[in-house]
Amino acid sequence: MIFPEAPTAYLLSIGEELLEGRVRDTNAGTFATELLQRGFHVVGMRTLGDAPGELTAVLQELAGKVDLILSTGGLGPTVDDRVRAEAATFAGVPLEVISTAAEASLAQLYQRVSKMQEPPSFFMAQARMPQGATALANQAGSAWGFLLPLAAGAFYAALPGPPRECGATFHQGGLLDFLEEQFGGDDGSLAYGLLNTVGAPESVIESKMRDLLEKGGNPRLGITAGADKVCLSILARAEGGQSAKEVRDACLGELRQRLGDVVFSEGHQSLADVVVDQLKRNHQRLAVAESCTGGQLAAAVTSVPGASAVFHGGFLTYANEAKVESLGVPRSLLETHGAVSAEVAAAMAVGARERCACDWALSTTGVAGPGGGSEDKPVGLVWIGLAGPDGQVQTFRRRQYARGGRAVVQQLSVRDALDALRRAIAGLTPLASTPVN
Amino acid sequence: MIFPEAPTAYLLSIGEELLEGRVRDTNAGTFATELLQRGFHVVGMRTLGDAPGELTAVLQELAGKVDLILSTGGLGPTVDDRVRAEAATFAGVPLEVISTAAEASLAQLYQRVSKMQEPPSFFMAQARMPQGATALANQAGSAWGFLLPLAAGAFYAALPGPPRECGATFHQGGLLDFLEEQFGGDDGSLAYGLLNTVGAPESVIESKMRDLLEKGGNPRLGITAGADKVCLSILARAEGGQSAKEVRDACLGELRQRLGDVVFSEGHQSLADVVVDQLKRNHQRLAVAESCTGGQLAAAVTSVPGASAVFHGGFLTYANEAKVESLGVPRSLLETHGAVSAEVAAAMAVGARERCACDWALSTTGVAGPGGGSEDKPVGLVWIGLAGPDGQVQTFRRRQYARGGRAVVQQLSVRDALDALRRAIAGLTPLASTPVN
Repeated sequence: MIFPEAPTAYLLSIGEELLEGRVRDTNAGTFATELLQRGFHVVGMRTLGDAPGELTAVLQELAGKVDLILSTGGLGPTVDDRVRAEAATFAGVPLEVISTAAEASLAQLYQRVSKMQEPPSFFMAQARMPQGATALANQAGSAWGFLLPLAAGAFYAALPGPPRECGATFHQGGLLDFLEEQFGGDDGSLAYGLLNTVGAPESVIESKMRDLLEKGGNPRLGITAGADKVCLSILARAEGGQSAKEVRDACLGELRQRLGDVVFSEGHQSLADVVVDQLKRNHQRLAVAESCTGGQLAAAVTSVPGASAVFHGGFLTYANEAKVESLGVPRSLLETHGAVSAEVAAAMAVGARERCACDWALSTTGVAGPGGGSEDKPVGLVWIGLAGPDGQVQTFRRRQYARGGRAVVQQLSVRDALDALRRAIAGLTPLASTPVN
Repeated sequence: MIFPEAPTAYLLSIGEELLEGRVRDTNAGTFATELLQRGFHVVGMRTLGDAPGELTAVLQELAGKVDLILSTGGLGPTVDDRVRAEAATFAGVPLEVISTAAEASLAQLYQRVSKMQEPPSFFMAQARMPQGATALANQAGSAWGFLLPLAAGAFYAALPGPPRECGATFHQGGLLDFLEEQFGGDDGSLAYGLLNTVGAPESVIESKMRDLLEKGGNPRLGITAGADKVCLSILARAEGGQSAKEVRDACLGELRQRLGDVVFSEGHQSLADVVVDQLKRNHQRLAVAESCTGGQLAAAVTSVPGASAVFHGGFLTYANEAKVESLGVPRSLLETHGAVSAEVAAAMAVGARERCACDWALSTTGVAGPGGGSEDKPVGLVWIGLAGPDGQVQTFRRRQYARGGRAVVQQLSVRDALDALRRAIAGLTPLASTPVN
């Protein structure tokens, strides 16, 4: 329960392909977040197939119990797409063209794609929606959605299935405006916030805020351990003369004070976003020398739009030979200490920084697994090197979660390399090396 | 409907964090596939919160309607984890220690993690399960699952929530053995197959197999367009003297013949897996020179375990300066043709191949967006270069789906670069360049 007075919502995902596991549903999770941020309490989610009568039965069950039913999928041109017909049947109204704009948009799209003048009737059937519904424009595809008030008091919103299309229909198609007007989700009575941390396990984060986590409090806090970060979500409401935003911001401040420098961002800013932003502000450039992360470190940085302003490039030195030739790592270092060592991580970072004439260079060398581990150097052992503008080089030993498999070892190494750089640029205490055991 | 005689299953995902969108459920999709492959018809999926009575009500509703109810989540040590208690209440049985192995495993885990001797009672409560249930071992975490026969004839399987843990409990904890014994999913009466294609849109694939897609046929085919491939799924049953495997294999052969060389693998083998495998068989080595893909091409290759046998490394030449210095791309080429051109893609591939002394080198240079596009060189335009063992170099112009955003442009460029290499190694017709408009 979010807050006792919160409006309730139920999410439906429609399509036999979901029940067969051929397509993974991401819509329910997306709209759960969207609705939570607007103060809804999502009380359930359900995935339905395409069998006749399924949707009608579910509408029958839910219409008197929740304020909003939101479905995705089942709006296409084929006979399996029964959402329009079943909603009309349930509401006891006929299907008709309720929006000439929807009809025109469909005809136009058909002509553009097929180069034919006359769209077939099965295609144009997508413009027929339950009488009394409001059409919801789909700017990313052909099937528009609709919003239908049900006799029991609930509203039924039907959106198309493809994630981009239902997102566009929700945000720009008129549904969001309606929800805000009807349920007041964005009238300032609620404020949502996210705080992202790296470098402390969920249990440590939780122990520092346990008193704030109790149920029914304001703001309502949630803690979520993701693959490479721990996030805190905050939903605040106005109280005691304070606006919802003020309640939220006070809580954000309190959390930042308790958690210190493990907090790396608010909202949806990723660790790579933060590092690119730091480099931009400092007019500094970064190069990388990757071994065990095999391109993923650079991929994380270059996934940020505008990274080209601060990312020079670097070297993928997977083979030892490549470390010697591309980065100038002395062969003797590789022979004495092995490729997975502080010495080689340092030489890789220094080599990349010099060759690229950059301010910073990050290196990774480790045992990603599943093969290649030894007692001395087990799967999951990773060294990170960081060469900086002052000519100094730091190295960090990390013992990643090897049981998670190769992909997890690589992902956590990327996270730690970025965090080492974040800390160095910001002048924080350096990333800690983890014990070998 | 899979086949009329198929046993039916319903999937439950339990946890308030799922309804709040803080954690995205992947379990339902995973088990949908697992159960489909064993001949179950999954008739629905539902996500429940932690409110008292929710699970009991759902068990009440479903127990007489399906053969198997499978839930994930709600088995931990906290008061919110009500699955054990509600299942016992619904079945009208007490909770008790049904497995001393489960109890011992819990105590051992607690002692290892906490370094304390005596696990608290709230933790050991995880060993108490409904009387009459069978414990399902969890080799990846603390909370074991259980399998409970319900009076109405259905079986209720409760698994832990974390994906690794429910996977281990399903596969190694005893549930799979039970399902095969009870429902005969793997007795040879059904056979499942997957065929993966790249290089043709879903509509073209579908047009070549439309006659095979009709409902109720054997085998049952499904077509799924993923982000970077189109997959065909095949579920066959024994018929007319042919075993299920024979029916499946005949269908696989027919599909391969109709679809030709756009088929790149069967089962769960990725395009990168295929390319690494091809290189291994030929004892050849690969280097890369990435600009617009920014490390993702190398990351795809090095995500394959054992890639180090064939992947040398390469160059991340994001900046023009890096293309000149690391790869020896003539400055004049960059000035005359621009970085996004066939000439520069070719020079990058040749430079990488020579510097790394490898058999093959792949290069990418393009406009990933969102910024940087022009009328001549719009966002989504990408050139791929491929230098081969014969000293020849090929270039391919691709116009990626820019509306999908930067991540999609990068992902499709990686796909096309790998496909260019797959085709070259196998001696197939080269990857086609796409028209500019």
